[in-house]
Amino acid sequence: MNNNPFKDQIIIDGLQYCNWNREIFEDLLRGGITAIHVTLVYWENTEESFERIKIWEKLFNEYSDIIFHAKKTNDIFHSKKNNKLAIIFGFQNSAPISNDIYLIEKFFIKGLRFMQLTYNNQTALGGGCFEKIDSGISRFGRAVIEEMNRLGMIIDLSHAGRKTCLDAIEYSKKPVAISHANPLFFHDSKRNIDNDVLKKLVSKDGFIGLSLYPLHLKNNNNCKLEDFCEMIIKLSNLIGLDHIGIGSDLCSNWDDSVVMWMRNGKWTKKLDFGESKNKSSAWPAQPLWFEKGSDLINIYYGLSKLGMKEKDIFKILGSNWLEFFKISFG
Amino acid sequence: MNNNPFKDQIIIDGLQYCNWNREIFEDLLRGGITAIHVTLVYWENTEESFERIKIWEKLFNEYSDIIFHAKKTNDIFHSKKNNKLAIIFGFQNSAPISNDIYLIEKFFIKGLRFMQLTYNNQTALGGGCFEKIDSGISRFGRAVIEEMNRLGMIIDLSHAGRKTCLDAIEYSKKPVAISHANPLFFHDSKRNIDNDVLKKLVSKDGFIGLSLYPLHLKNNNNCKLEDFCEMIIKLSNLIGLDHIGIGSDLCSNWDDSVVMWMRNGKWTKKLDFGESKNKSSAWPAQPLWFEKGSDLINIYYGLSKLGMKEKDIFKILGSNWLEFFKISFG
Repeated sequence: MNNNPFKDQIIIDGLQYCNWNREIFEDLLRGGITAIHVTLVYWENTEESFERIKIWEKLFNEYSDIIFHAKKTNDIFHSKKNNKLAIIFGFQNSAPISNDIYLIEKFFIKGLRFMQLTYNNQTALGGGCFEKIDSGISRFGRAVIEEMNRLGMIIDLSHAGRKTCLDAIEYSKKPVAISHANPLFFHDSKRNIDNDVLKKLVSKDGFIGLSLYPLHLKNNNNCKLEDFCEMIIKLSNLIGLDHIGIGSDLCSNWDDSVVMWMRNGKWTKKLDFGESKNKSSAWPAQPLWFEKGSDLINIYYGLSKLGMKEKDIFKILGSNWLEFFKISFG
Repeated sequence: MNNNPFKDQIIIDGLQYCNWNREIFEDLLRGGITAIHVTLVYWENTEESFERIKIWEKLFNEYSDIIFHAKKTNDIFHSKKNNKLAIIFGFQNSAPISNDIYLIEKFFIKGLRFMQLTYNNQTALGGGCFEKIDSGISRFGRAVIEEMNRLGMIIDLSHAGRKTCLDAIEYSKKPVAISHANPLFFHDSKRNIDNDVLKKLVSKDGFIGLSLYPLHLKNNNNCKLEDFCEMIIKLSNLIGLDHIGIGSDLCSNWDDSVVMWMRNGKWTKKLDFGESKNKSSAWPAQPLWFEKGSDLINIYYGLSKLGMKEKDIFKILGSNWLEFFKISFG
């Protein structure tokens, strides 16, 4: 860690979903990662989601020497000072709040700081990126946005449809995030975002976390580090440097049943293969230069190699997220 | 009852939501009503919906001398023979199934025979009639329709948006119902149905139950019996006689908080007044000729007066629903 360029920096990964254990936490800490936004649920209902939080409370207890539950930006500094990894809670769907707007505050009190409105499919709040027709933000969705604004919970538009993204950007009084996706110009995927939406997003100080999930990458797991870093530079030329971060979407240490759970939940009796064009029910392989959380250092080297200034690299690798957190939940 | 024209007929009300007690059940029985589809829930979640069923199980026990839970068409004949009112379960929303397609069968086993895909607002299944943009049937909605078809649960499109109605009519392999609404030509309301949708509905043997809810009626509670009966004749000229019934939407014996619950559930912190143009939070008054379930007899007299044949009147007042139940759940 002593020679790690991340040593004195705030480094943030804006989304991971791992089967957490000491080894994974320690890899992140050793790698100089300061904070990560972790996914708690996809399809889980209210009760199951509160259960997930309880499981995390046990993790915070068990690994109190190396992790800390961050609810404010200051908690991130505090964690770093104490050589602990700061953990920020997020839901990748609105399933946990069911039809109950009052549940948002209950989850906020438990530490939830990100919530996606949709996960691929339509919800009562808006349209998902896999739907043929995207309704945009619904009546309930609008009420939820207002409530999330009030509380300071980040509206996450990953996995939302295009119109839902545009509506949410327009309706939200606070900047919104797409925590883990890539520009559509980099790779054609239902999960990636076109230039118009990206421009609208940043015109209202919104944020995009760039994804390392292979199905969002040019050439999938054969994507070269150089290609990924060139995309970052191209994107920063398009929308500026201040609204870009990393949301790696790294999913580690799960068996294959979990990727199929993410795709199918309990919403269909037939198998849905999501983004997998070859209908694989296995986790797609990661690029060799991003197989674990600490591999974020490779992006540092990749961007350096392309001539990006160190200050700018650190913005993208963490301080931009930090600023976004400040205006979101203080 | 001896002189009641309904004595030897099957008379069915295709939707009521009352605060049930012996008096209400006895009024229906004395009035010669054979069966009613009752609403169990609007916004209730899974657990609360199973609770509602338990409450009904207690009612069946307490009032075993006068009511019977009908799960098959034969149960309706059986109830009539035993001078009991047949009760058919329905949900006015898909909130109870959350994101879980497997819950449909669990509710079916408990006797659920109708489920609306939406209640005014968008759900994960489709668009509601109060939404600015109606998505139509979503990916989950399509899977749910297939499952409801498999089980023999009636897909109820009351409170759905126009495109959602059209999609469901198209996708469903069994005829679908709009259990309680009126033609748009009779009264302009977001809840009423235009001629094109009505024609599509019956072109696939779908069904409409006509509503006595004042906000669906021409001149609201000042609607004349004659106007209502003329509408029935006009409608039967448009779509034929076989696909029309009554779904009175009668809501009896509730205090005003309940109509606001129906409109607001827990989806908004602001008050939503639903269809009430004058923003009243009270129950709208019923027309004087339809204040209780047994007042169905007035429609019999009204249609007779207009010269409709008795056989046709009884089709509309019950035997059409019965035929529809047969093809739906046997």
